[in-house]
Amino acid sequence: MVPSVPIPLSRKRIRVVYRIRGDERVALATARDICVEQTVEFPLDHLPAGDIRDQIVGHLEEFQLVNESHARATISYPVEATGGDLTQLLNLIDGNYSLKPGVRAECVELPETLSEAFRGPRFGRDGLRSLLGVPSRPLLGSALKPLGLPSTALADLAYRMALGGIDLVKDDHGLANQPFASFDERVHQCADAVARANRETGGRCIYLANVTASGDEVIRRARLAKAAGAGGLLIAPGLAGFGTLEQLTRDDRVGLPVMSHPAFLGNLVGDAESGVSPFLLLGQIARLAGADASIFPGHGGRFAFSPDDCRSIVRGAIAPMGGIKPIFPVPAGGMTLPRLPELLDFYGPDTIFLIGGDLFRHGPSLVDACRAFRRFAESAGDRIRR
Amino acid sequence: MVPSVPIPLSRKRIRVVYRIRGDERVALATARDICVEQTVEFPLDHLPAGDIRDQIVGHLEEFQLVNESHARATISYPVEATGGDLTQLLNLIDGNYSLKPGVRAECVELPETLSEAFRGPRFGRDGLRSLLGVPSRPLLGSALKPLGLPSTALADLAYRMALGGIDLVKDDHGLANQPFASFDERVHQCADAVARANRETGGRCIYLANVTASGDEVIRRARLAKAAGAGGLLIAPGLAGFGTLEQLTRDDRVGLPVMSHPAFLGNLVGDAESGVSPFLLLGQIARLAGADASIFPGHGGRFAFSPDDCRSIVRGAIAPMGGIKPIFPVPAGGMTLPRLPELLDFYGPDTIFLIGGDLFRHGPSLVDACRAFRRFAESAGDRIRR
Repeated sequence: MVPSVPIPLSRKRIRVVYRIRGDERVALATARDICVEQTVEFPLDHLPAGDIRDQIVGHLEEFQLVNESHARATISYPVEATGGDLTQLLNLIDGNYSLKPGVRAECVELPETLSEAFRGPRFGRDGLRSLLGVPSRPLLGSALKPLGLPSTALADLAYRMALGGIDLVKDDHGLANQPFASFDERVHQCADAVARANRETGGRCIYLANVTASGDEVIRRARLAKAAGAGGLLIAPGLAGFGTLEQLTRDDRVGLPVMSHPAFLGNLVGDAESGVSPFLLLGQIARLAGADASIFPGHGGRFAFSPDDCRSIVRGAIAPMGGIKPIFPVPAGGMTLPRLPELLDFYGPDTIFLIGGDLFRHGPSLVDACRAFRRFAESAGDRIRR
Repeated sequence: MVPSVPIPLSRKRIRVVYRIRGDERVALATARDICVEQTVEFPLDHLPAGDIRDQIVGHLEEFQLVNESHARATISYPVEATGGDLTQLLNLIDGNYSLKPGVRAECVELPETLSEAFRGPRFGRDGLRSLLGVPSRPLLGSALKPLGLPSTALADLAYRMALGGIDLVKDDHGLANQPFASFDERVHQCADAVARANRETGGRCIYLANVTASGDEVIRRARLAKAAGAGGLLIAPGLAGFGTLEQLTRDDRVGLPVMSHPAFLGNLVGDAESGVSPFLLLGQIARLAGADASIFPGHGGRFAFSPDDCRSIVRGAIAPMGGIKPIFPVPAGGMTLPRLPELLDFYGPDTIFLIGGDLFRHGPSLVDACRAFRRFAESAGDRIRR
């Protein structure tokens, strides 16, 4: 009943590596099932011979056992199957298979044509360094919180953080458009506060407004934030959608650096036996969708990411991916001032260190705590230059 | 360093039930941590006394052990913390905690003010029944596939499905804007084909175009689909974002029924020890975001959902939730004609049964296979009326 029609295809293919649970027989059957489920979702024996069967159905390119109960399979899909949509690329990688256990998508390799279609970050790591005027030392970030403070108090925190030498002062990702600190009011006040501190210090701190919201409201808030003087934006693609992150970073009327936050994404990367690897989701996909910096839960903090997970995200943020720029990894979530030397050794200088609540634990002066944070980064920079 | 400022709050609260792994001591500590992590993300001992500490931080309303190693906690948050954003509601429910293992969000209870703010589905179950002119029998759905067919062949399938009595003919969720069946061309041809079949049968079958894409492109495609005569839309919120689903269903220039697809969402609901329950994600949240029907992997098919998971999604689709309309559960993924009696007993008549590939296994005529599917639904309807 399904006709056989030749399809004009470039024969260029996207390659996805999957880790599959099972002995050789089970894992091989699963790999073959992925080829079908992620593309045609159709009984193979009812597909006529021809291009759909030969080219659209995934190709099992490589298969090897990694241990007694796991294999690694590389499966390729035709670039045309994405139709140029990031959402459809995600669907090819792990759409239906997200609903089946025992398979984790590890990484993706795109042919050049596709890494041009998905433009990726507007600024990237080097663009953000230029914007901030910081050529080599680690960058410093902090978050405006707690939720519940009025805009004036948040702006006062922003001022003191900028005065103390923080490079990126971001909204906590829970600050949206609450009646006690509406988006419009908060963003104007915080942007003004950071600008005032910059005038006093001669610095180039930027304030990143959280624009996580539904659909178009993201763009509306982003344009409003830009008009108010925000130097960057924060968005949680787990809540707003990776497609919305992509739209935001492509909008020329916005044109600000964007940091992505992992809220609601934890379950996609929390299990080595299913979902998507941290490398792929918080590294490669965040980058493809256009984030200039990707926040993730640093090891040894409040969250459960392992050092290996964190290392892999750093690799995903910078690994060669056609023309797509490298971005900043942003370890966060329970980072502390005393841990900075260890963290710098682990992550290296091309990192945004995001310290939130801990800055409030170091005596009465937030400015002084930020200055200590900044001194550390400067001395790390000196070490790098030496 | 954080000032104490009174916050005008309604004292109305959202209640979220969490299942927590751990003995009493561990689970209670986790419950208290949720109260902080999901709201202020701030060291509690550095929060001044006052409204932030007393009202913004979650309240542990109920706590009980369910067995030796699990507890159930009900935590409430002030309605104002959402700021009226669906994305921020999701963030309160499981934003940061998605990154911590051992906790699953089970369900949410909204105060009336909030179930008004989140309007939910435009049509809902009863609206969709009216639109299709089917007052009581189960509805029948099928999917246009495989990926790779040209628009003419997809339209031909749509025609035959509509002729055979299918109520809802949807794009497979992998059909996007591929060069071999561009969105514009496909949607025009499929909508025309279904209209032609309707003229012949006097039926009211609708074609649902897949509009999953990035940001605004969703709305652009949806309006184009409506202009082309599509009677409904399909979107995968795991790919496009729940916020984008919400925007789509609120757009008065679209105004079509919307079916949600679970691609990429599997890992959020796949583990009873973490993430979000199927009841909450594919029932309550799909509904809050405005879907009129929610596809999920039916038990006993190609996917790993248990009968209990499926039952819970049905409950989530119809459980009282303020003014938010009940919606259709749509079991799918490996459903077959021979299983229909069993599935009807299990799901009841207020269900859309979605059968895809299996319709192609029943002899040479797709129309006949669809007619057999329809006869079953009619006789089920008769049984209900009797």
